[in-house]
Amino acid sequence: MAAKDIDTLAINTIRTLAPDVVQKANSGHPGAPMGCAPMAHVLFSRFITANPKNPNWINRDRFVLSNGHGCALLYIMLHLMGHNISMEDLKSFRQVGSKTPGHPEANHGVTGIEVTTGPLGQGIASAVGLAIAEAHLAATFNKPKYELINNDTFVILGDGCMQEGVQAEAASLAGHLKLGKLIALYDDNHIQIDGDTALGFTEDVVKRFESYGWHVQVVADGDHDVEGITKAIQAAKAVTDKPSLIKVRTTIGYGSKNQGEEKVHGAPLGEPDIAEVKTKLGFKAEEKFYVPKEVYDFYQNITKKGEEASAAWDKLFADYAKEFPELASELKRRLAKKLPEGFAAALPKYTPADPPVATRKLSETLLNKVALKIPELIGGSADLTASNLTRWKGAEDFQHADTKLGTYAGRYIRFGVREHGMAAICNGITAYGCNIAFGATFFNFISYALGAVRLSALSHHQVLYIMTHDSIGLGEDGPTHQPIETLAECRALPNLLNFRPADGNEVSGSYLVALEATDRPSTLILTRQNLPQLEGSSIEAVRKGAYVLQGGDADAQICFVATGSEVSLAVDSAAELAKEGIKSRVVSMPCWELFEEQSLEYKKSVFPEGLPVVSIEAMSTFGWDKWAHASIGINTFGASGPYKDLYKKFGLVPDVVSAKAKKVIDFYKGRKAESKLVHPF
Amino acid sequence: MAAKDIDTLAINTIRTLAPDVVQKANSGHPGAPMGCAPMAHVLFSRFITANPKNPNWINRDRFVLSNGHGCALLYIMLHLMGHNISMEDLKSFRQVGSKTPGHPEANHGVTGIEVTTGPLGQGIASAVGLAIAEAHLAATFNKPKYELINNDTFVILGDGCMQEGVQAEAASLAGHLKLGKLIALYDDNHIQIDGDTALGFTEDVVKRFESYGWHVQVVADGDHDVEGITKAIQAAKAVTDKPSLIKVRTTIGYGSKNQGEEKVHGAPLGEPDIAEVKTKLGFKAEEKFYVPKEVYDFYQNITKKGEEASAAWDKLFADYAKEFPELASELKRRLAKKLPEGFAAALPKYTPADPPVATRKLSETLLNKVALKIPELIGGSADLTASNLTRWKGAEDFQHADTKLGTYAGRYIRFGVREHGMAAICNGITAYGCNIAFGATFFNFISYALGAVRLSALSHHQVLYIMTHDSIGLGEDGPTHQPIETLAECRALPNLLNFRPADGNEVSGSYLVALEATDRPSTLILTRQNLPQLEGSSIEAVRKGAYVLQGGDADAQICFVATGSEVSLAVDSAAELAKEGIKSRVVSMPCWELFEEQSLEYKKSVFPEGLPVVSIEAMSTFGWDKWAHASIGINTFGASGPYKDLYKKFGLVPDVVSAKAKKVIDFYKGRKAESKLVHPF
Repeated sequence: MAAKDIDTLAINTIRTLAPDVVQKANSGHPGAPMGCAPMAHVLFSRFITANPKNPNWINRDRFVLSNGHGCALLYIMLHLMGHNISMEDLKSFRQVGSKTPGHPEANHGVTGIEVTTGPLGQGIASAVGLAIAEAHLAATFNKPKYELINNDTFVILGDGCMQEGVQAEAASLAGHLKLGKLIALYDDNHIQIDGDTALGFTEDVVKRFESYGWHVQVVADGDHDVEGITKAIQAAKAVTDKPSLIKVRTTIGYGSKNQGEEKVHGAPLGEPDIAEVKTKLGFKAEEKFYVPKEVYDFYQNITKKGEEASAAWDKLFADYAKEFPELASELKRRLAKKLPEGFAAALPKYTPADPPVATRKLSETLLNKVALKIPELIGGSADLTASNLTRWKGAEDFQHADTKLGTYAGRYIRFGVREHGMAAICNGITAYGCNIAFGATFFNFISYALGAVRLSALSHHQVLYIMTHDSIGLGEDGPTHQPIETLAECRALPNLLNFRPADGNEVSGSYLVALEATDRPSTLILTRQNLPQLEGSSIEAVRKGAYVLQGGDADAQICFVATGSEVSLAVDSAAELAKEGIKSRVVSMPCWELFEEQSLEYKKSVFPEGLPVVSIEAMSTFGWDKWAHASIGINTFGASGPYKDLYKKFGLVPDVVSAKAKKVIDFYKGRKAESKLVHPF
Repeated sequence: MAAKDIDTLAINTIRTLAPDVVQKANSGHPGAPMGCAPMAHVLFSRFITANPKNPNWINRDRFVLSNGHGCALLYIMLHLMGHNISMEDLKSFRQVGSKTPGHPEANHGVTGIEVTTGPLGQGIASAVGLAIAEAHLAATFNKPKYELINNDTFVILGDGCMQEGVQAEAASLAGHLKLGKLIALYDDNHIQIDGDTALGFTEDVVKRFESYGWHVQVVADGDHDVEGITKAIQAAKAVTDKPSLIKVRTTIGYGSKNQGEEKVHGAPLGEPDIAEVKTKLGFKAEEKFYVPKEVYDFYQNITKKGEEASAAWDKLFADYAKEFPELASELKRRLAKKLPEGFAAALPKYTPADPPVATRKLSETLLNKVALKIPELIGGSADLTASNLTRWKGAEDFQHADTKLGTYAGRYIRFGVREHGMAAICNGITAYGCNIAFGATFFNFISYALGAVRLSALSHHQVLYIMTHDSIGLGEDGPTHQPIETLAECRALPNLLNFRPADGNEVSGSYLVALEATDRPSTLILTRQNLPQLEGSSIEAVRKGAYVLQGGDADAQICFVATGSEVSLAVDSAAELAKEGIKSRVVSMPCWELFEEQSLEYKKSVFPEGLPVVSIEAMSTFGWDKWAHASIGINTFGASGPYKDLYKKFGLVPDVVSAKAKKVIDFYKGRKAESKLVHPF
């Protein structure tokens, strides 16, 4: 079969298979797969080098379908390339328990899906992270004659992604960073859900990306011009100091009677239209889920080349290991997601004799001791470095060498004021497979980034969100910057560990667990203001999520549970009560999620039957009814002023707290404080 | 005094007063006020027409300081113009209880602050909303000879704002909408917190804004070139079909020994440096909080012109009222934030005989009946119109007439896939003072917009967030689109009403309250799937937040409380239990926040002492311990599949729910179910 003929046949196979997949599910998006079939075919058959039999091969080319609603396309391509998606899986599209959910999910059983997409803009932003990770790894491990790492990151994105702020943030940073191995194909089909893009999206995308410093090309006929797409990608690959955008003009739902209209975007075409499409493209109208043998053979042949490349790399790496044994074993360690041995010994420990320090500052101290020992840690701040204190001494910036501000071997990323982009980029960095990404900002501004934080959790990406200025304790900046609802938000998100450490030992313990948690993200929620080093705290105690800090006696009348800066308030309030002969227990609870995972026996040892519990946290009490019989917090917005004045204003001082505690004791004199740990089911 | 001299004196007054304000607070940002003093002076003295004695004058020019951390500048300008900020208020900058918090807050007692800023990017995005509102109002009310509405919206924004995605989204839309009366001055000082913008922000901003369709100019010497700034603003005013950006090159902290460096960005200069600044600028080193009489006089004179303009407008409006009495009274009604009389009568009512309908569809029916009666309602969807069902029949798009797609008199906004921008724009539209803004997307994607939703709540802006596809009930789109944590997030946010109606009557009741709530935003959380019309529901019941839908008998053994789609599940589960002779109560709780505001007596009538309560909600149970003794929900991410299969997978079916209810009944046989409504304090 002539090259041109097989290209056409393959493209038409995708264009007829995709509507079948969507039709059987009676749900989904046929338009994008049919429109993007040519560019996907070109990418997978001519550019993407990967090995489905060794899908984690570190130097594979990455592909991200940023317009994730078009995932029938991705599933079909992965099926054709020999990944672990069968024809049966395609037939179970969007069904409960299938491998083929409505949008592509990373780390959910299908190889070749690098990052989760569907929430628009996330894919292209995470792809920037994949490209950063590649550039960093190449700079770290490549040696003359051993170009171990040199993969490309390819993206397809649509109009929806192009309108999202997270995309704009990441694209601007990618241009600054001159990520030459990032190549994005923009499916410019002029149609979005509401109709023609003329309704609300008339900017000049080419000019915008040029303004970011990208290399931009246009392919006028993306429906047919396979060679044009190919040449543009080749040209993009030749540009090494700029990311590339290729605007490919396509027809959404190509082949359908409604092609080029929004009707084909998000609903099955219907059997009659599908039959017509098949006839039009030279397929049998009645044949469903049909892949010609020539097409399977053709892609299998491509896959074989990928297998060969992967084998050749193994050979290269074996030689490299002889010449650079330390580097090789370091790379192997990272690939295995094993932390360097003995790193935990470097974690700072504190005693009550140590001076009061802000937990953000304790975090800085820790990073200064640990960051050099954990070279896979890479990240930075959204332009709050001096406030987040996330840059360790001697850190090098991750920058293109031309800037003279750093190199790609640097591990400190200047994200700029781009919180959402930062989080999405962190997902990509971790997804690459050799790094633990971190991003930092004020805790309040995790609200800007939640779209991406949610995907860290859903996709099991280990990302550390270092969030300082964690309450009204930030003081004068006022209610616009003071988190109230924010911790409840984070706690309600599945698969996210939230740490709010109370002192130096708990900061160390929080980092310890967060660094060990290879399959989930963490927040590290830190104060601006100084906190004392507590009697009874320890690094290891953090593993349990909550523990008895003080007052383990059986005859305590009241139990305080607090997190972060309010633990010392609980201690002071307990001291206040002690003056009146009232014994109390203080529980520090740096991480709800870890405590929930403990045995009931342990939990009961912390919160014994019959002992009333009062929570203290300088933010919304929302959710605390789960653990506490009464809650002290702030259920309004904050205020602007010196932090000590604010704590007083909001009643977060020992005399007010202890008075409330006495009310609780009185309240439960006549009745039993039912354990919060025993549930009917 | 010569014009040039008074300009210099006024600018230097600002440049010396700002560091005094920050120094006294020992906290704040002196750099931006000192660098932006010339452009602020030009704007306030030559362009902004407003009347501090009638600060709500609808046709006043709006000014937004998007780099809100520089608010010492805004407070100083408002003080000089005669707004209700005294010198004492400036001296109480960033103190508890002052009128001058760390970032400017709208609707917190100071006139002239149009929208809350500080969280970066919000100001410029909300300013787009202010300009939309102006254009819409002008198109609606202006008549030949009566140009009632023609104000400008001026913005100052900095590098931080320029990096935020919310800014990019709103700026792109502003260009599309050709908002000629929006004029933004970009304080291009090359410094952000981390240092030189070269670290991470090297895009070509001029080219980017041109790509959006903005008119862009550059002023090379923003430190001194008062006439250059003036001419640029004049030129911007002359361009009527494009928003304008003026890039003004400035020196941050102008006058300080550290001018042009990040040191002057976010900390007081220190007394010695301030003394030097004063000397350098011709002021007495030892004189603090000093405003020369000539400067007060000068600005007072400007204010007088504003008063005259405002009085002339009153006269114009009086004449207009004679010629167009209906339009005039309509405008007055809107200004008074009074809903049209009798609109509530148009709200649809339902009986159990009516067919099952999705609440998003019921919302559409309601909008079709109500939207034409409430002409102040303006908004749209983030490119999900056909899914959110927010466009009523006969709606006209808000578009520039040149597009032939609508006019500025249209009330339906095509926001594009720009959720964060949409929410920030809605804040601006409502802040303008004559409209109720609404924005729509899938509920899950409110996570993209929370930065702005938070400011709706903080600033008391009435915005309706119409959020459809509210749970796993959306089905096949899968976990990337299914809210789990989302409702907990919203409930934890102060001053936000969250409605999850269960049927048609509750949809009507939810809209009724949301439309009446002039000082807080609401979410309307709606299903994709059909729900039955319930026996016992009513419009008025929604006002109470929660009410007994069924099973009011005193001898119920169990109480279900549910919201939205799970209320009918509770009813079905109760029916299941009834087969076994177990009586249960069903409480529908469309709005937590309203229920919390009810009397304890009413609350106890809903949740009687001793009756165990089981909550059912198809998302995270986080927070439900506040009301329920046991909770049924989903504390993991969702899954992709037809929604009925998903409800089954997650145990949200009558047989599973009723079995769990029986466990609760058994559990409380030996012990009392303590009321959740009685608290120790």
